[in-house]
Amino acid sequence: MSTYTRRKFLRDAAVAGAAVSAISTPLKVLAAEKRSTVRIGMIGVGLRGQSHLDEFLKRADVEIVAMADPDKNMMAMAQKIVAQYKKKSPVEYTNGNYDYKNLVMRNDIDAVLIASPWEWHIEQALAAVNAGKKAGVEVCGAIKLQDCWDIVQAVEKTKAPVMMMENVCYRRDVMAVMNMVQQGLFGDLLHLQGGYEHDLREVLFNNGTDGGPGVGFGDHGFSEAKWRTNHYVNRNGELYPTHGLGPVACMIDVNRGNRLTALSSISTKPKGLHRFVVNNPLGGPNHPNAKVMFKEGDIVTTQIQTANGETIVLTHDTSSPRPYNLGFRVQGTNGLWIDNHAGGFDEGMIYFEDKSPKKHTWENTKAYMEQYDHPLWKKFSKDAEGAGHGGMDFFVDNAFIECLKRDADFPLDVYDLATWYAITPLSEKSISEGGTLQQIPDFTAGKWQNRKAVFGRSDEY
Amino acid sequence: MSTYTRRKFLRDAAVAGAAVSAISTPLKVLAAEKRSTVRIGMIGVGLRGQSHLDEFLKRADVEIVAMADPDKNMMAMAQKIVAQYKKKSPVEYTNGNYDYKNLVMRNDIDAVLIASPWEWHIEQALAAVNAGKKAGVEVCGAIKLQDCWDIVQAVEKTKAPVMMMENVCYRRDVMAVMNMVQQGLFGDLLHLQGGYEHDLREVLFNNGTDGGPGVGFGDHGFSEAKWRTNHYVNRNGELYPTHGLGPVACMIDVNRGNRLTALSSISTKPKGLHRFVVNNPLGGPNHPNAKVMFKEGDIVTTQIQTANGETIVLTHDTSSPRPYNLGFRVQGTNGLWIDNHAGGFDEGMIYFEDKSPKKHTWENTKAYMEQYDHPLWKKFSKDAEGAGHGGMDFFVDNAFIECLKRDADFPLDVYDLATWYAITPLSEKSISEGGTLQQIPDFTAGKWQNRKAVFGRSDEY
Repeated sequence: MSTYTRRKFLRDAAVAGAAVSAISTPLKVLAAEKRSTVRIGMIGVGLRGQSHLDEFLKRADVEIVAMADPDKNMMAMAQKIVAQYKKKSPVEYTNGNYDYKNLVMRNDIDAVLIASPWEWHIEQALAAVNAGKKAGVEVCGAIKLQDCWDIVQAVEKTKAPVMMMENVCYRRDVMAVMNMVQQGLFGDLLHLQGGYEHDLREVLFNNGTDGGPGVGFGDHGFSEAKWRTNHYVNRNGELYPTHGLGPVACMIDVNRGNRLTALSSISTKPKGLHRFVVNNPLGGPNHPNAKVMFKEGDIVTTQIQTANGETIVLTHDTSSPRPYNLGFRVQGTNGLWIDNHAGGFDEGMIYFEDKSPKKHTWENTKAYMEQYDHPLWKKFSKDAEGAGHGGMDFFVDNAFIECLKRDADFPLDVYDLATWYAITPLSEKSISEGGTLQQIPDFTAGKWQNRKAVFGRSDEY
Repeated sequence: MSTYTRRKFLRDAAVAGAAVSAISTPLKVLAAEKRSTVRIGMIGVGLRGQSHLDEFLKRADVEIVAMADPDKNMMAMAQKIVAQYKKKSPVEYTNGNYDYKNLVMRNDIDAVLIASPWEWHIEQALAAVNAGKKAGVEVCGAIKLQDCWDIVQAVEKTKAPVMMMENVCYRRDVMAVMNMVQQGLFGDLLHLQGGYEHDLREVLFNNGTDGGPGVGFGDHGFSEAKWRTNHYVNRNGELYPTHGLGPVACMIDVNRGNRLTALSSISTKPKGLHRFVVNNPLGGPNHPNAKVMFKEGDIVTTQIQTANGETIVLTHDTSSPRPYNLGFRVQGTNGLWIDNHAGGFDEGMIYFEDKSPKKHTWENTKAYMEQYDHPLWKKFSKDAEGAGHGGMDFFVDNAFIECLKRDADFPLDVYDLATWYAITPLSEKSISEGGTLQQIPDFTAGKWQNRKAVFGRSDEY
């Protein structure tokens, strides 16, 4: 594909120019490619899986061998995307919820990409690694804490690694800030915030057929409304921690010289989803869903402590009308960054004691974001054009594939997945106990003290 | 004084125009004045006390009878201010730390205003109310939880009321937002944030003589550096909760239909104050204060739950370089406000589902702040000109005096003081136990369920 060709050219150019490179972040020497093509099985080809599929199909180094999904409509949409790229039709596994077990047993796939409903992630990842397949797993929180231990132990036993597919770690402004962190602009990091502050009401409810307006969910919902909304009926916790936590965890080297030690969570009353159903012209006070008791508090706050003395505050805020914001704040002894909207270079405030021209006065972020644009973004921004979520999806998929080609360590691995996923059941337990303190397990069993950071340190992914 | 005359005129005009008033907030019928002049004793006439003194001296309805402070330099500065107003010189109590006990025994004062170092507030307030004097008490957090019980019980026993002198409750944008809350713009309130995010390093350290540059504190410090910095050496907690908590507590009717139930606090490592001493040209790594171990974490986060299901997050962040911000966020089922700086009408972001023109898109706050400017500010903005902290100090002092004249209930009373002050020792306990959950006492002993809100409801204060 032309994208891949251009990327190859850029890579060669970068290697040739390495001696005079302006790249300022220390980058690792690359592992050699062990294979030129990676054979992938997709588990879950709903809208999110289709987005990964699209990224993979653009590449000459990926072959989509098989796809599993019990939803035949989604499977048909996925096959249509494959056809648009004029690639070979992958083998389908659509025979119920457990047909993925047959997919992972195939001998002609190297890895699976899991983008199914939350409640299936760990079960399917376990099946994959137990079948010796590497796995990329989409974001969410664990259903129960034991899931996190199970996937860690399975990876340690089988040596089939798992990548945590957290795309927001690759958001352009986030990576620029990480670059600033590594170059010491913030001084010693002290306090970080992140969250998922995104009005999801029109995702959680729809008409059940094509995602158009409506107040249906579950059997009467389309796409995420089919399964995500039920988590709001049955659970109260930080349901979606990784977009907020992942980026800041990378900045303070969690599981690589640092670790999360404890959390406590609190939640507001649940008001927003009921209000949405009742006030919706397609719902109303007499609609059956107006009788549903939602358990998930509208805003869930989680405060987290770390071994190295930083603190983190996470916010889950998806049931209320509000502009999108992941609410990042990165603060150190020399200054701080606050993210006010959706990642645009000029959508934040920043201040550094030794750089900002006017004492006690915010600067706009734009000039800093441009100056500290991460080397990976400088190199691949053209390739990322058109990829999902402002381009960041290109990077997370690229990292997955490039690591598979090299048998290299994933930059975000099973310990990250377990630690980040664990926030959800621990937050649920904390809230159910009135806000009690919960210890966060060390899934690395002490290895965090010597593990080295990988994320954002490679020249290639 | 001309200020008072103008105010009197405005008041008369307002009464005359009541029938056609544009005031949209429901306001209470005024109690009649019981006395035209209030006789005040000042306890603590350091810089903060002098600011109150200046406000009182502007008024024809206040007589400053006596002033207590062991610091003779501060006393001289205070007398100089009195002289500038050509008022009678108040009797001085400067004979050591306990001379205030003689002041409160005078028969010719109605009330005291306490603006001493934090560790003296409750002891002095107890002495005042036990001597039958009403008391206005400056902001801070309690030294120990029992202090909060002691002052509540003393007020209940003596019937001498105490006012919590929280000026930020009267900040113009805060009162405008409170007006919006009362008019239902936010829907049901869900989540609130506030804090004290103010780089205090040049307040905590100085040259010890006039507040000029330096790294001295304690015996080598001037004004607040004399005593405030020692709290950072010996304590780790939410040391200064009320500027952030007070305003949001008023919005959700804490102690008046609602109450704070539990909190947990976490803190970052302490880095900033040591760094300040070491990096300061007047300090350096060999300065004696470079050996001081500061205990107070640079950023302390506290999450609070309420009886009515709202959540509150407080941030104490005073040891790091950063622009000033009290970090307010007020969020309900219909929208939210975020305060980005220091209270300017245009320094925030706001969004309402049923008002904002563009879905999922912030608006600047300016037009809303102007439209919902609180009736008290509309009425008294000219009087507030030149008063401390952007005018808000006029309002808190005005409320104190007007209530004293009427024997009316203070809008922020001893239960508010106890509840807000209690955050500090509870947060210290939480942090010392690794972040455990702490129950917040109900200082009203159940009366919160029937008490009515007063703050911001009067036409006069």
